[in-house]
Amino acid sequence: MTNAHRPILVTGFEPFDGEAINPSWELARALDGETIAGHRIVAVQLPCVFGASLTVLHGAIARHDPAVVLAVGQAGERSQLSLERVAINIDDARIPDNAGAQPLDVAIIPGAPSAYFSSLPIKPMLAALRQAGIPAEISQTAGTYVCNHVFYGLMHALDQRPGIRGGFLHIPYLPEQAVLHPGAPSLSLSVAIEGVRVALRAALA
Amino acid sequence: MTNAHRPILVTGFEPFDGEAINPSWELARALDGETIAGHRIVAVQLPCVFGASLTVLHGAIARHDPAVVLAVGQAGERSQLSLERVAINIDDARIPDNAGAQPLDVAIIPGAPSAYFSSLPIKPMLAALRQAGIPAEISQTAGTYVCNHVFYGLMHALDQRPGIRGGFLHIPYLPEQAVLHPGAPSLSLSVAIEGVRVALRAALA
Amino acid sequence: MTNAHRPILVTGFEPFDGEAINPSWELARALDGETIAGHRIVAVQLPCVFGASLTVLHGAIARHDPAVVLAVGQAGERSQLSLERVAINIDDARIPDNAGAQPLDVAIIPGAPSAYFSSLPIKPMLAALRQAGIPAEISQTAGTYVCNHVFYGLMHALDQRPGIRGGFLHIPYLPEQAVLHPGAPSLSLSVAIEGVRVALRAALA
Amino acid sequence: MTNAHRPILVTGFEPFDGEAINPSWELARALDGETIAGHRIVAVQLPCVFGASLTVLHGAIARHDPAVVLAVGQAGERSQLSLERVAINIDDARIPDNAGAQPLDVAIIPGAPSAYFSSLPIKPMLAALRQAGIPAEISQTAGTYVCNHVFYGLMHALDQRPGIRGGFLHIPYLPEQAVLHPGAPSLSLSVAIEGVRVALRAALA
Repeated sequence: MTNAHRPILVTGFEPFDGEAINPSWELARALDGETIAGHRIVAVQLPCVFGASLTVLHGAIARHDPAVVLAVGQAGERSQLSLERVAINIDDARIPDNAGAQPLDVAIIPGAPSAYFSSLPIKPMLAALRQAGIPAEISQTAGTYVCNHVFYGLMHALDQRPGIRGGFLHIPYLPEQAVLHPGAPSLSLSVAIEGVRVALRAALA
Repeated sequence: MTNAHRPILVTGFEPFDGEAINPSWELARALDGETIAGHRIVAVQLPCVFGASLTVLHGAIARHDPAVVLAVGQAGERSQLSLERVAINIDDARIPDNAGAQPLDVAIIPGAPSAYFSSLPIKPMLAALRQAGIPAEISQTAGTYVCNHVFYGLMHALDQRPGIRGGFLHIPYLPEQAVLHPGAPSLSLSVAIEGVRVALRAALA
Repeated sequence: MTNAHRPILVTGFEPFDGEAINPSWELARALDGETIAGHRIVAVQLPCVFGASLTVLHGAIARHDPAVVLAVGQAGERSQLSLERVAINIDDARIPDNAGAQPLDVAIIPGAPSAYFSSLPIKPMLAALRQAGIPAEISQTAGTYVCNHVFYGLMHALDQRPGIRGGFLHIPYLPEQAVLHPGAPSLSLSVAIEGVRVALRAALA
Repeated sequence: MTNAHRPILVTGFEPFDGEAINPSWELARALDGETIAGHRIVAVQLPCVFGASLTVLHGAIARHDPAVVLAVGQAGERSQLSLERVAINIDDARIPDNAGAQPLDVAIIPGAPSAYFSSLPIKPMLAALRQAGIPAEISQTAGTYVCNHVFYGLMHALDQRPGIRGGFLHIPYLPEQAVLHPGAPSLSLSVAIEGVRVALRAALA
């Protein structure tokens, strides 16, 4: 299949930590079926579970053979779109995942590299976002919970698949979530959606 | 004129502090002409200037004889809609206003009361906002710059006009403004606009 | 009694909100008996209780006839010494006080002024603190809990006692308290103590 | 040389970004010559310069053959001691270093691993700090400036020297620095010094 016909895989998570929704999945499913620079977006939901999230992700990569994978997750304390730079080989969970597991200071993949950098062009993506009026930043840490777990597992898989580029984006709460967190920042779904369009266009340019 | 026909005056400010726009004016002019609970909204722009802002405000009150006055201003460091509780009788400017004046620790109206509380029902407005999924909070300070100046001057004038209720709302940066302030929170104009509709409906209920 | 012989009353609170200590009382009792510019410091502990705190405060003022009253309270989310500018006539408690009362949106003293400004020279005190290398700021709100309640009740009482000046200072957690609040700011007791000495010297200059 | 006689190398930086002092060097030189668990502390100052900082660090390691290396740096926006978990192989400078260089998105050591984890026992160190009443946290990013550069260069060197353990600690501003940064958190030097003693004792236990 030529690159132009290969899809973009955008993943989002199911809700966790007591939230009713997860903005990453709201975003992914809203984009499902859209075409960016000739590539159709395929949205896949990941469980917020160590291990199982990667099983689903790897299955989706195998099934769809995407040109680009953008995994998206919720970062409730952040104000802007966060383009993650690096995934680290550690699980260290502050709270249990949705299956009740709470790994502490264990390698995601024993013996694998300590970290992988995003293979998406995060600086051009950042510039495009700011140019489009969408608040964004580079982040140096995706944490040590399921988001980083998925980001690391993604990049580890893609290390063997040089034809697929991938990375991770953290997005803030939606405004309706911030209602339950007095003082918390948020970002509208429409802004996040437009942000992903802009960022993907820059990544594919 | 019966109460039902008297308008709602919504004021916003011109840009200040190097910003190209002021979300409070974008919000006010977007609502201009809308009807809330039978009251037409009239939007008026205030200069970001000590003194002159109150001259414009008082002129607008005299001209429109509103049932409700909602003055709105930008609070760049805040994440949510802030319903202000109290205006204090002091000007203490961190930066010069748009006319170059920078009053320090001077009474807005010498001999007048130290403070006025909002005469809008801020707690029911807060409840209505949260019910509508719009992030909001009560704030105990509108600062000591032109926002508080306008809020105080408004409430001082309304103290002699018991038939008019008034208050002040601070709103965050718009997302496009936050682009220039890495890490800063923002709120979409559409959310702020819907928030003002919801809050005014609650105030008029 | 001449002014030079009248004491300085420094009040601190008992612990609240699950804390084992209250830095304001640690500070007050550490200063008890010291002499600042010829005035002996008398420390008095206030209960973290609406109403009862003012009974104790007013009793201490009557008993000691101080030249200056500095009420001090804990502000767990703040990083620097906060010289409070204004007390407002409202109780609106986020959590119950130590006696279980949780007043919501009620006047502290019905019919009394909406607010009182500190009668301490907060700007010279701020300048002296910064000159001494102690991080400090002016705050425009002491909140709506027992701290503001005491500040308001103090200034209302002093309004009838022009020979006594008074104000309120918020101080951060101590470092040992911040241990239980990941990421929270703190300030060492020794810095806060030296800060109060410097601030009182400036107030009495 | 037996382990018991090998020193602890504690490095701090010279001031940068317009500051008059750097708390990391104030801390290191205050500890110079102390003995922790039988190991004498040797303090070495590093220039806040990409490249040159590592030359000095590697020279000090060669000269002193330490049992443990703790590199310390200033993190002005943080409130607590930050035990860094991971160093990443990237320089991306927000501001020029003290020699005027501002590398952007370049590998520190081309071809070397993407990251190294601290070889200090950061979780036991964290527990010991909290037990001692010293506010501390684990940090997942040391940034992409000279601090991370030194941390990465340290861990890369120690990768060939398994007998030496090393890691990085970020510390807040001192209170006297925070005076120039309104609202900024700080930590007293005495608390940071005691924190390093406690953390090193835990690391050597």
